[in-house]
Amino acid sequence: MAQKKRVLSGMRPSGSLHIGHLSGVLENWKTLQNDYDCFFFIADWHALTSEYADTSNIRESIIDMVIDWLSVGIDPEESTIFLQSSILEHAELHLLFSMITPLSWLERNPTYKEQLKEVKGRDLSTYGFLGYPVLQASDILIYKANSVPIGVDQLPHLELTREIARRFNYLYGEVFPLPEALLTQNPKLPGLDGRKMSKSYDNVILISDHPQVIDKKIRPMVTCPHRIRRNDPGHPDHCPVYSLHQVYSSKDELDYTAKGCKTADIGCIECKSILINNIQTLLEPVHERRRKYEKKTKRVREIIEDGAKRAERVAQETIKEIRELLKLGL
Amino acid sequence: MAQKKRVLSGMRPSGSLHIGHLSGVLENWKTLQNDYDCFFFIADWHALTSEYADTSNIRESIIDMVIDWLSVGIDPEESTIFLQSSILEHAELHLLFSMITPLSWLERNPTYKEQLKEVKGRDLSTYGFLGYPVLQASDILIYKANSVPIGVDQLPHLELTREIARRFNYLYGEVFPLPEALLTQNPKLPGLDGRKMSKSYDNVILISDHPQVIDKKIRPMVTCPHRIRRNDPGHPDHCPVYSLHQVYSSKDELDYTAKGCKTADIGCIECKSILINNIQTLLEPVHERRRKYEKKTKRVREIIEDGAKRAERVAQETIKEIRELLKLGL
Repeated sequence: MAQKKRVLSGMRPSGSLHIGHLSGVLENWKTLQNDYDCFFFIADWHALTSEYADTSNIRESIIDMVIDWLSVGIDPEESTIFLQSSILEHAELHLLFSMITPLSWLERNPTYKEQLKEVKGRDLSTYGFLGYPVLQASDILIYKANSVPIGVDQLPHLELTREIARRFNYLYGEVFPLPEALLTQNPKLPGLDGRKMSKSYDNVILISDHPQVIDKKIRPMVTCPHRIRRNDPGHPDHCPVYSLHQVYSSKDELDYTAKGCKTADIGCIECKSILINNIQTLLEPVHERRRKYEKKTKRVREIIEDGAKRAERVAQETIKEIRELLKLGL
Repeated sequence: MAQKKRVLSGMRPSGSLHIGHLSGVLENWKTLQNDYDCFFFIADWHALTSEYADTSNIRESIIDMVIDWLSVGIDPEESTIFLQSSILEHAELHLLFSMITPLSWLERNPTYKEQLKEVKGRDLSTYGFLGYPVLQASDILIYKANSVPIGVDQLPHLELTREIARRFNYLYGEVFPLPEALLTQNPKLPGLDGRKMSKSYDNVILISDHPQVIDKKIRPMVTCPHRIRRNDPGHPDHCPVYSLHQVYSSKDELDYTAKGCKTADIGCIECKSILINNIQTLLEPVHERRRKYEKKTKRVREIIEDGAKRAERVAQETIKEIRELLKLGL
């Protein structure tokens, strides 16, 4: 049996996830776990790069988030689920990589420059924030991952990981494969207010939202600004409800609502009801699994701890190889 | 019994040490180990900041260097001797500190700017070289060291460690004592050619040098440039041999040689013979112990491994406390 290629992906612990995470990331992870040896990790150290001043939410967010992973169908028998900070070898490799990473590579990183400018209310001019891609490189390379599912915006980071791997291999010997991007279509899911769905905008539908909550959230959504009265025809392309339809509704339903909107044959209430029903139906089996896991958080902890054991074995092997090559240790 | 205060100090693994290390550092360590709970470590990760491109000497240098430590009287029953890279918690704390250390603190570090300019033949513009003081801070603070024996030139680094400790304590709670400098008189020992004694100048007397080698190295040393002929009077203050006398000879011998030089009553050969004899005598018991350890390198390894166990216990306790405060881990 040919060995499956390895995929690595992670998420910062941000508590309960929203349906944007589901369609953007988790659905993809579900597909990947059939064909790859998947390592999915909770990036709690990464959370510190921006949240160092208030770390109070990190721990409680972990279990919540992993319950979402499990509920949507990430299978701990298939995939390795673990917590980054349990594997000290990430920190060791981060330190080793720091020695061979030119400062200029990090200073040139476009995301770094952008975020320094854009993120308000937090002081990001720290050594760790600059070195964020070095930590990412060690997360990926410590498992010798072959592929990393990312969006186009993440390509410069992955290229840095590949550069670090190349430089390491050149200096010490061929240790790391150069990880490839598995480019994922990451449709920008609009939130309840039409802006990008994001917890910081308070415009999200959570994966764990009760059916009634979903109803209550979608029903008052702003629609196409041209449909002031019931009989005014609308433009689906200007309507955030229709954008959600595009993710959650069938071809027929899309045709029906688009046409009905343009001709004013259907009202926004009817249109929204179809969407509400589709999201509720999609989440029904997820909620069923969720209720099971919510009662067994001890089991969830075990899953994360078992995953750590698996991850640690791989990480320790890589470090052993590296220590031998660099003549580190006794 | 009041608990002894803790001291931390380390050396990069550079193989056999010279008598400059003995009088500058190790004699001091010997005194400290009576009054403090001393942690002495081999800084192999630090060696990478400048030696990353060729790491081939690191491992073999470790045993050689520790044999020197033991031979001069560093007592593994009194002090904890260990290898930095055995304690992964240094790397973890380094990562955590990186998140709270402003880049500007590191960029402003005078040693950093100086070395970037002065060190030739190596590319030091790496992320790790900039972060060198962050690693130093974690080396010191992971053991909650109260005191650090350093020379005046190291004060800015220690101040950075204290700044990082202060910032951490402010953000998360009082974890770290602010380590104090134990300022050591670090007389600049001249080498055989009058320049500072340093392996890179190839002008050293090794602690392990055989008595005959010491004789052979000192006898041809250049002396005061005014003593061209035997009868020319000299200036002890211009003579590197006299500088060595100042470290290794008695008050009477200093008077005798200084006077004899100025009056041309004694020749350089006689003067050197006194010095040679003193250094040989000083190193005699050291060599005796050295021969013992050279035959028992397995025992030396055990000493380093036992030290690592002790160090690890302390480091793990500190990390546990920190993880609790930062709400990291499950």
